[in-house]
Amino acid sequence: MQTGGEHTSTRVDEPRRPGLVSPVEDQRRTTMAMRLSEQQREAALAQLDGWSRMVGRDAISASFRFTDFNQAFGFMSRVALMAEKLDHHPEWSNVYNRVEIVLTTHDAGGLTDKDIELARFISRIAPDGSMAAL
Amino acid sequence: MQTGGEHTSTRVDEPRRPGLVSPVEDQRRTTMAMRLSEQQREAALAQLDGWSRMVGRDAISASFRFTDFNQAFGFMSRVALMAEKLDHHPEWSNVYNRVEIVLTTHDAGGLTDKDIELARFISRIAPDGSMAAL
Amino acid sequence: MQTGGEHTSTRVDEPRRPGLVSPVEDQRRTTMAMRLSEQQREAALAQLDGWSRMVGRDAISASFRFTDFNQAFGFMSRVALMAEKLDHHPEWSNVYNRVEIVLTTHDAGGLTDKDIELARFISRIAPDGSMAAL
Amino acid sequence: MQTGGEHTSTRVDEPRRPGLVSPVEDQRRTTMAMRLSEQQREAALAQLDGWSRMVGRDAISASFRFTDFNQAFGFMSRVALMAEKLDHHPEWSNVYNRVEIVLTTHDAGGLTDKDIELARFISRIAPDGSMAAL
Repeated sequence: MQTGGEHTSTRVDEPRRPGLVSPVEDQRRTTMAMRLSEQQREAALAQLDGWSRMVGRDAISASFRFTDFNQAFGFMSRVALMAEKLDHHPEWSNVYNRVEIVLTTHDAGGLTDKDIELARFISRIAPDGSMAAL
Repeated sequence: MQTGGEHTSTRVDEPRRPGLVSPVEDQRRTTMAMRLSEQQREAALAQLDGWSRMVGRDAISASFRFTDFNQAFGFMSRVALMAEKLDHHPEWSNVYNRVEIVLTTHDAGGLTDKDIELARFISRIAPDGSMAAL
Repeated sequence: MQTGGEHTSTRVDEPRRPGLVSPVEDQRRTTMAMRLSEQQREAALAQLDGWSRMVGRDAISASFRFTDFNQAFGFMSRVALMAEKLDHHPEWSNVYNRVEIVLTTHDAGGLTDKDIELARFISRIAPDGSMAAL
Repeated sequence: MQTGGEHTSTRVDEPRRPGLVSPVEDQRRTTMAMRLSEQQREAALAQLDGWSRMVGRDAISASFRFTDFNQAFGFMSRVALMAEKLDHHPEWSNVYNRVEIVLTTHDAGGLTDKDIELARFISRIAPDGSMAAL
């Protein structure tokens, strides 16, 4: 194990980082983090091929199968970069060429615009044929 | 979704890629992929802090908690590079600053030298304090 | 070459992306992108070990030497994630275990707060001993 | 700067790592690292669209322009994974959506099979339209 190095947090949930967020931006985030109404989520999901609502959780999920690990992790790197840009991160797992992604907004206790925005990006960059049919 | 692009495989397990592996190397891999004896795995795990044997599976696992997503994904990128080098890949999941890793050798139906080698690398590069106590 | 896929831009410089930036955020960015005064850059650089001003360019640079490519690219992955978060990207090159980074703000025609912020992050995550002495 | 952490090498060139390479594998590498004859490199390059021989160096190079940094760094992550797998690394630079790659084999003092193999992979995964015309 690496000795020294950066301080490692013990927080479980995604922390707010007030020092990096201006009051104006913070207000915008709060607005965006409101849970979608039933009507909004139906409308959003109707345009998101390959994503489905989870049973027993206010979340959406999708499964991907790539050519190999190289293609899978290249995809994950792009999702990671967008997640940092949006300050909104997936729950995800990977085994070799397969990736499973769950999106929900922990702060809001359910699905928000942020999840739809990240889902759209993910669907757009996924190689043709990599998203599992439902 | 991206139209065109590379062919996407439908195989579930990590495929052998005979075209990239010389007969000599192939023989070496087969040798290395033999499951560890009970004595071998006890000896190996005694030197692997933070890793534990799973219940009901011939596999080992470890949990990590990082400062933030940036540190978590930087760690994952390094593990991914080593996994490709070793041609041996983890089962893993990530939520923001947390990473869970399970190692086993699918071809061999259990724990092999490959898992120990990858676990050692992972423990070596993990920032101090990021591995959860058992 | 991959056929199909995403549209590839022909723009040389980092484009403004008005669709993703709200007017409020845009104003903030414009404010932050003002070039530093001579006094400001002296003060900022005095606290940035390992970075030096370039000759003939309003930019700063640093050199890194890592254990191997694995460590170098893990570092690059973290810098890439922060660059996307800040919407501010480095000019950089890599050969095996070496990385060279140049920071400047193209929009502002020189050094701004953004460069100092990214430089501080980079210095903070660089493994001990990896930054070349000047 | 991170205190502690892994030992950082001071070697400039890509080191041989005898501990990780068996004698058999080592022999194979040595064989593969022989410089290509003029006839071999002409034949190889005739099938590599977008790559050109450099002037004054026994090396090949290519230029890429992507949609944005996200796509560029996703591409770089895939090249990095293959470079580690092949134990053969590029000289490359990146500015936002542009990537420049130079391939040569330092050990052999010029172009070898390794460079052609890596160049083929790179051309195969590059999104359509991202390779600059010569």
